[in-house]
Amino acid sequence: MQVTLTALPGIPIVRPGDDIAELILEALDRSGLALEDGDILAVTSKIVSKAEGRFVDLREIEPSLRALEISSIVGKDPRLVEVILRESTHISRMAPGVLIVTHRLGFTSANAGVDHSNAAGSEDIVLLLPEDPDRSARELRERLSAATGAEIGLVITDSHGRPFRLGTVGVAIGVAGMPALLDLRGRPDLFGRELRVTTVGFADEIAAAAGLLTGQADEGMPVVLVRGLDVPTGNGSAADLIRPPERDLYR
Amino acid sequence: MQVTLTALPGIPIVRPGDDIAELILEALDRSGLALEDGDILAVTSKIVSKAEGRFVDLREIEPSLRALEISSIVGKDPRLVEVILRESTHISRMAPGVLIVTHRLGFTSANAGVDHSNAAGSEDIVLLLPEDPDRSARELRERLSAATGAEIGLVITDSHGRPFRLGTVGVAIGVAGMPALLDLRGRPDLFGRELRVTTVGFADEIAAAAGLLTGQADEGMPVVLVRGLDVPTGNGSAADLIRPPERDLYR
Repeated sequence: MQVTLTALPGIPIVRPGDDIAELILEALDRSGLALEDGDILAVTSKIVSKAEGRFVDLREIEPSLRALEISSIVGKDPRLVEVILRESTHISRMAPGVLIVTHRLGFTSANAGVDHSNAAGSEDIVLLLPEDPDRSARELRERLSAATGAEIGLVITDSHGRPFRLGTVGVAIGVAGMPALLDLRGRPDLFGRELRVTTVGFADEIAAAAGLLTGQADEGMPVVLVRGLDVPTGNGSAADLIRPPERDLYR
Repeated sequence: MQVTLTALPGIPIVRPGDDIAELILEALDRSGLALEDGDILAVTSKIVSKAEGRFVDLREIEPSLRALEISSIVGKDPRLVEVILRESTHISRMAPGVLIVTHRLGFTSANAGVDHSNAAGSEDIVLLLPEDPDRSARELRERLSAATGAEIGLVITDSHGRPFRLGTVGVAIGVAGMPALLDLRGRPDLFGRELRVTTVGFADEIAAAAGLLTGQADEGMPVVLVRGLDVPTGNGSAADLIRPPERDLYR
């Protein structure tokens, strides 16, 4: 079994209003690749956010009292804290330099995914995650399938830090045209006994694999074609990957 | 940029005392593959454990009072709980059906990685993780490099569940011949500003990518060759991936 991960070459810096489907189709063309049934495209959330114009100018943000209080604990710009709070439903942990929240989309991550590192040429411009990455994934997938006739899966990726472990890894924040989780419960093992509980974070493993190519500082390779996996049919969403609060002992 | 993930075919069910280096070299031979500088091999911990004979027969385990107490909370076999406690340094969380511990190797995971699903043909036989997976990774890498002349990286993988997110993903519990973390701090972004903090869990992303092929119930494909990454030199270890307790807000 062989799987190939191909970073599509020559995707330009994305600007608000850009048509990502068109940019991907052009990049496929340029590299002589045609989408095939069963292919999965992993697309960084950063370019989706940029195309959606999800920039916020901190100079226009008035921090609330709560943002000021939290800012004094975590030592971050109170305007940035205000933006993070607006994107969040729950503060999970805070400490000097650290603000971990439950994003309004359901997942838990540092700074609600608000990107202050590479968003634009200004210290005052930050980039939010896409408004609804599952919807963005569905729309992008539909555009690409309509243009190519191929039944593909699509994952929109972000990089998250983790409890217990150092280093960020790619995770899926938008999924379309494929399952997000693979449920191996009940599949017999080599000795014929039933496996008890094995649900695999399939879309997250796709995102982590794509992260090996997209890296972090290299916006030149935001789209990775994953080919050769035997992907079960299904229409999952990134919401499937969220551990329900009542089953989360660490929230 | 293209990366290929190739599951080595025809690796037999591993038994105590088997020589995994030899099994891998034979599988490479059979598939006409020769290791090259910069290749990374991802090997499931399960076959390393089996070769190391890390089986425990629960019928020989006398649960301690503490194991009996914890067993009554989590609803697991007290003999299994005893084995888990012997492999652990700290209980992170417990609840009915759930026992999350800090393994003596430093990482935090369910059941200390004690495998009760597929270890052998008996309900009473469980499989521990390798005794020292970083050492196993170094030894295996040295054997393979000596036999082939190729400078390779090697990752020993396990599957972990996670706080916040559903589904297991592959993680690295042994690393040799490559960095475990990639530090992108200070690498300039597209606009020339310094990225603030971006440390990527490189070996974990390798393990997650390999997990796409090795699956969970499919012991037939426990070794994945990762080719085409531009891997920086370095001699990391899986210990590098452990978040120090004082920097872990969720321990």
